Amino acid sequence: MVEVAALARNEDGIGTVLGILKQQFGERCQTGEAIRQQHGHTTTWIENQPPDGVVFATSTQEVSDVVRVCADHKVPIIAYGTGTSLEGHVNAPAGGICIDLMQMDQVLEVNAADLDCRVQPGVTREALNTYLRDQGLFFPIDPGANASIGGMTATRASGTNAVRYGTMKDNVLSLEAVMADGTVIRTASRARKSSAGYDLTRLLVGSEGTLAMITEITLRLQGIPEAISAARCSFPTVEAASRAVMATIQYGLPVARIELLDAMVVQALNGYSKLDLPETPLLLLEFHGSDAGVAEQAETFGMLAEEEGGTGFAATASLEERNKLWQARHDAYWAMLALRPGCDAVATDVCVPISRLADAVTACDEMAREMDLIAPVVGHAGDGNFHASLLIDKADQDEQARAAEFISWLNDLAISMDGTCTGEHGIGQGKRPYLVKELGQGTVDVMGAIKKALDPDNILNPGKILPG
Amino acid sequence: MVEVAALARNEDGIGTVLGILKQQFGERCQTGEAIRQQHGHTTTWIENQPPDGVVFATSTQEVSDVVRVCADHKVPIIAYGTGTSLEGHVNAPAGGICIDLMQMDQVLEVNAADLDCRVQPGVTREALNTYLRDQGLFFPIDPGANASIGGMTATRASGTNAVRYGTMKDNVLSLEAVMADGTVIRTASRARKSSAGYDLTRLLVGSEGTLAMITEITLRLQGIPEAISAARCSFPTVEAASRAVMATIQYGLPVARIELLDAMVVQALNGYSKLDLPETPLLLLEFHGSDAGVAEQAETFGMLAEEEGGTGFAATASLEERNKLWQARHDAYWAMLALRPGCDAVATDVCVPISRLADAVTACDEMAREMDLIAPVVGHAGDGNFHASLLIDKADQDEQARAAEFISWLNDLAISMDGTCTGEHGIGQGKRPYLVKELGQGTVDVMGAIKKALDPDNILNPGKILPG
Repeated sequence: MVEVAALARNEDGIGTVLGILKQQFGERCQTGEAIRQQHGHTTTWIENQPPDGVVFATSTQEVSDVVRVCADHKVPIIAYGTGTSLEGHVNAPAGGICIDLMQMDQVLEVNAADLDCRVQPGVTREALNTYLRDQGLFFPIDPGANASIGGMTATRASGTNAVRYGTMKDNVLSLEAVMADGTVIRTASRARKSSAGYDLTRLLVGSEGTLAMITEITLRLQGIPEAISAARCSFPTVEAASRAVMATIQYGLPVARIELLDAMVVQALNGYSKLDLPETPLLLLEFHGSDAGVAEQAETFGMLAEEEGGTGFAATASLEERNKLWQARHDAYWAMLALRPGCDAVATDVCVPISRLADAVTACDEMAREMDLIAPVVGHAGDGNFHASLLIDKADQDEQARAAEFISWLNDLAISMDGTCTGEHGIGQGKRPYLVKELGQGTVDVMGAIKKALDPDNILNPGKILPG
Repeated sequence: MVEVAALARNEDGIGTVLGILKQQFGERCQTGEAIRQQHGHTTTWIENQPPDGVVFATSTQEVSDVVRVCADHKVPIIAYGTGTSLEGHVNAPAGGICIDLMQMDQVLEVNAADLDCRVQPGVTREALNTYLRDQGLFFPIDPGANASIGGMTATRASGTNAVRYGTMKDNVLSLEAVMADGTVIRTASRARKSSAGYDLTRLLVGSEGTLAMITEITLRLQGIPEAISAARCSFPTVEAASRAVMATIQYGLPVARIELLDAMVVQALNGYSKLDLPETPLLLLEFHGSDAGVAEQAETFGMLAEEEGGTGFAATASLEERNKLWQARHDAYWAMLALRPGCDAVATDVCVPISRLADAVTACDEMAREMDLIAPVVGHAGDGNFHASLLIDKADQDEQARAAEFISWLNDLAISMDGTCTGEHGIGQGKRPYLVKELGQGTVDVMGAIKKALDPDNILNPGKILPG
């Protein structure tokens, strides 16, 4: 468990605000211990810092009302979706109000002809894709968890498809948002491109609820490809697999997914998902395109992989086999946990320039061994992004200390390679020290000036991204 | 000629600053009339508002020095590249110092393995592509003019390739920038994706020199495709051509370029470029991919075009024929001017959701006729972006008034279709009134708060994007 400093609480303000909100929202304003704890829950080892109350909002107007009340009394307000973020994003270090947006779960419009749609923040990515399927459309961003679109927007999520389709920053056209004073704004039109003033859309994407509350998201969609095929290929070493990824990207092959699993993860999957894969590093791929196109992509990849010592290359267009492969990839987290029953898993999330991927993954593997840590690696390798998940004995203080040291070392390694300490999980509470290391104090000061300008009383998700 | 309000001048400050800069920069600080006028030049009918002096900077340190001197004395400072912007971006309504960045023209590094490079702002896109060619790489953004990468970044430029490769916002990985107090920051690492704090890269892309001076740009590059083919197809009406574009995008065909030219432009090109095209609306296309891939794309497009009444469809992989087609497209501006010798051409730049493209272009055509204006249309149609260029008799006051009315009508039309008044030219001085119409006062107020936070004395390119 990592302790996080609590911030000064505005007790009087919180009491007043809770009184007002209970009046307005009745049963939709909850203060019970269990609900509060659940809304401060994070999926990591960061300690729980619950809010003082949880409001279940059903409209933009209600979000604006809650923000206005909180603004009047200088009380913190924190947005909540599915609670699947990993760096303490939903914690309430100064207490305050959590606003649960999961009842705002409507797909408001789908413009199939324009390949876009407008949704409320509580729509999950799976719900959206189920909704879209009949129209031959899909939304490609896939962070693993069935996260809410609002949360994915707020944390600039990405995942397995980002190598082809980009991250949330590339797939949000426009936002409706409630600013710190309760004003509702819209950041952009529905045009596919625009040069109309500052890019407020991109400023809010990834701002982790610290600059505004996102109440509607207009997303770019994709047509479901004519053909999809999947492939897997084994490699003698993580380095060889990484080199195959580098060759694929440098070749310009438009892979839709190219995921790296190290030998330990493959071993875990064989046990957990009843597979029979060679227990060496593995790449899983997906190709999207026309029938001829995906066949050509698979063939080209097979050639590139062979040059790096790849073996057992097998491509398949069968839906059943494809689903089996990708289900295994999605099971990786649970499979890894099963490697060490009862352990805590702590995810890291570095991303380096692709030319450094083999070096970074290899160094990561060696350092984990040296520090006597269990740290299986999966990666969205086509972006240079990988996660070493530390499997830690909760009772072993020394191991926890070594894990903390390892995480710090890995973040520094990525930064030294001109990479980032967070490819897709965000800064939250956990990575604030690294933000300055990565970008410098001057850059973080500019972020602080923007925060101060848009939220002068620091009521929007305080203690995240920036100090204080 | 459109007059633009002058802003209050800080005469004492300007005098002091010029004294200091002449001391430091000698011959590289110029105050002659011709040089000043040239640096306030815009390629539109907006009047010239020259700066008081022009400094030719050669390094980030020098840019920082100039900004510090201007900050100390609250004197405006305006960045200048090739001067090809269209909305008065380089005008100096309050006087001050223009900083010419064209001597900062070095490609600082190319990381071929990572498909990225780092350049100074004065590198032009053609110079960059010449530099990259031997390594099998190219930078896809093509705004027509041989603009500087710094200017393209500052105005969020795009152009013919944006339908496939995105705009500057999608192709800038990181920036070095000098803030209003002279501090030098870097906005991001070289990782292909990151969720490390606020997206300052995207905030500065398109900020038109009003938030910072951009001194280095890290760009994503593309591998030169294995195969490129071009195609053309004629249509009976602009509406039919637009419908073919809509069908192509909705199909998900990954066209690299899909440009619309109306009958008047085709007629102009036949005269200017000695071509023999049917004088009806025309689509010009380019396909990038493998040999088999481009052939398949061309075939699919041919099928879609035929359904919309397309005729004379011809695809070619011949470099010579391709160059001839695209040279004609690039000559369109000059060809249009030749339609009415001695005229002024004033470009509009609306962008609408693709489903509204046919309606918008048709309405534009009809309104121009109704208002007795000559307004040939070319468009980056795959993005829903098109330019009606008004060919105006400089001596005819009434025609100028009608043109102004037409521009206003067209911007309002795009906004009413949930589109934008500026797909790629920016707001500058010319489009400030429409920014509020498009996004609302609340949104523009948020932009104003950011401007105030990062440039409290309003010295960075005052009078652009925002009021004042």
